[in-house]
Amino acid sequence: MGFSEADVISVLQKVFATNDPRVKVGIGDDAAVIRGTDQQVITTDMAVQGVHFNLEWSSAFDIGRKITAANVADVLAMGARCEYLVAAVSLTGNEELTWIENLARGMKSEADKAGAVIVGGDIARSSIITIAMTALGSTSNPILRNTAQVEDSIYVSSLPGWSAAGLELLTREISVNSAVADKALSEFSAPSLDYTVDFHSAHSISDISDSLLIQAQQMADASGVSFEFNASLIETTAEFKEMNELAAQINSDVWQWILGGGEDHVLLATGVNLPGIKIGKVIAGKGISGVDMKKAPVSWSHFK
Amino acid sequence: MGFSEADVISVLQKVFATNDPRVKVGIGDDAAVIRGTDQQVITTDMAVQGVHFNLEWSSAFDIGRKITAANVADVLAMGARCEYLVAAVSLTGNEELTWIENLARGMKSEADKAGAVIVGGDIARSSIITIAMTALGSTSNPILRNTAQVEDSIYVSSLPGWSAAGLELLTREISVNSAVADKALSEFSAPSLDYTVDFHSAHSISDISDSLLIQAQQMADASGVSFEFNASLIETTAEFKEMNELAAQINSDVWQWILGGGEDHVLLATGVNLPGIKIGKVIAGKGISGVDMKKAPVSWSHFK
Repeated sequence: MGFSEADVISVLQKVFATNDPRVKVGIGDDAAVIRGTDQQVITTDMAVQGVHFNLEWSSAFDIGRKITAANVADVLAMGARCEYLVAAVSLTGNEELTWIENLARGMKSEADKAGAVIVGGDIARSSIITIAMTALGSTSNPILRNTAQVEDSIYVSSLPGWSAAGLELLTREISVNSAVADKALSEFSAPSLDYTVDFHSAHSISDISDSLLIQAQQMADASGVSFEFNASLIETTAEFKEMNELAAQINSDVWQWILGGGEDHVLLATGVNLPGIKIGKVIAGKGISGVDMKKAPVSWSHFK
Repeated sequence: MGFSEADVISVLQKVFATNDPRVKVGIGDDAAVIRGTDQQVITTDMAVQGVHFNLEWSSAFDIGRKITAANVADVLAMGARCEYLVAAVSLTGNEELTWIENLARGMKSEADKAGAVIVGGDIARSSIITIAMTALGSTSNPILRNTAQVEDSIYVSSLPGWSAAGLELLTREISVNSAVADKALSEFSAPSLDYTVDFHSAHSISDISDSLLIQAQQMADASGVSFEFNASLIETTAEFKEMNELAAQINSDVWQWILGGGEDHVLLATGVNLPGIKIGKVIAGKGISGVDMKKAPVSWSHFK
């Protein structure tokens, strides 16, 4: 079942083949040549086997989608369109060629949804699979996280917490036969980005991959304002009701998922009359109010 | 000796701090905002602990320089200027904070030489250190590898083989007390890119990180021409004489280093009256002539 690096590259070239007019030179030379703009947005995000994904819990396709969505989300969180992606992947040599192909197809699938094209990559050998992607986008008006204004409403593009719910089902090895549980598992495996929620007129945006509370705290601090959450606004959403029902079934804490869960690809924005789910208001002052701050995960800040 | 992720980010923000006017939003938001151009060049390259670098053999500073140079070289190999870099790094948690700082300083040092600025990154946790960088450059005239023309002369920006020579000294555990041996060890640890050799008027360029013979073969095939090497042109260079002397001392094969060694950051170009070292001529036909093709490494093509 051996295959050469050339076999892998040949498969990837086929999956990523494009006629996109923005791409002047695609995969195959030392670098790709693409059409840029005056205001470009660039971000990179790495996923490690056993830390950010798990071969037992996620398909190659979902792993590809997840890391791609993580990169795209950071571009959207600047109020920009994602245009180009490159991927560097380390493989162990124990993968089947179809696994690698499905990883690439997952990346391509999410990139297509975002309107982005994958223009290059690198393959390395390693004892574990590591995937690093870089996303390049463009915008005429970058929207930062330190520009939330008093009187702004606070919005999320969709309700966070699904990924944490899925992780809990997996780690506690609970099998729940419901569409809601399936959604949680699927969102854990590859959190979906809601591309229909357009925050281009927001005053400030941030991705909330670290958890809603942590990122809200960071935005409030950076902007010199206070975020006042309104739990009842969250409780009236259809997503909350679904998640709450699942939490009750397995005797878990829905607010811990929503406020403290990470790894969702949800955008947090402030502004006036934005789409998405309204969850509170920006007020003068410092910090967060209206929700239980004890739900914030603490482990995130300790690297060792 | 514990430190938090915030400590690491704080150190990196200090090392990578910049007032460069091309950078509109630097490290600290979801993504960086930079000034782009109409023709952008993008490439990514990954280095894995134990495969591309080794903590016993290379300092953090050299590892940072090496991966940065690898990315910059791919941009230069398109006839472009390297402008921006992002780095995604997985760490084990066993590193000292100063090791991480020196890794960043090595990246910054090579980026400075290239005139590029490091604008973003990601840190992940893993059982091994993996570094993925993406380089972004710009050019008004991309130079590809499939455009070598019959009658072109063939050039290298400097003589490849030093990295292979250094690797052989290390693996055979030979200690040679000479400036030439020191150069080989240093080039293995962090191959230098010669930024003074300007190939912007070349007809074709390629980076030769996989070995001179392999990359020359690829360029000749892609261009539909033949590369005729002239060994005596190589033998008259000062670098050849140094390398040849070292090879004789340790009973090794200098041509294996030059033709078959990889991991040098040397550019191979064809054109008329270019700078660098002239090593042959492009002729009609197919393949490579003038050197011993048996020196080409074979292991490169087998992923498993």
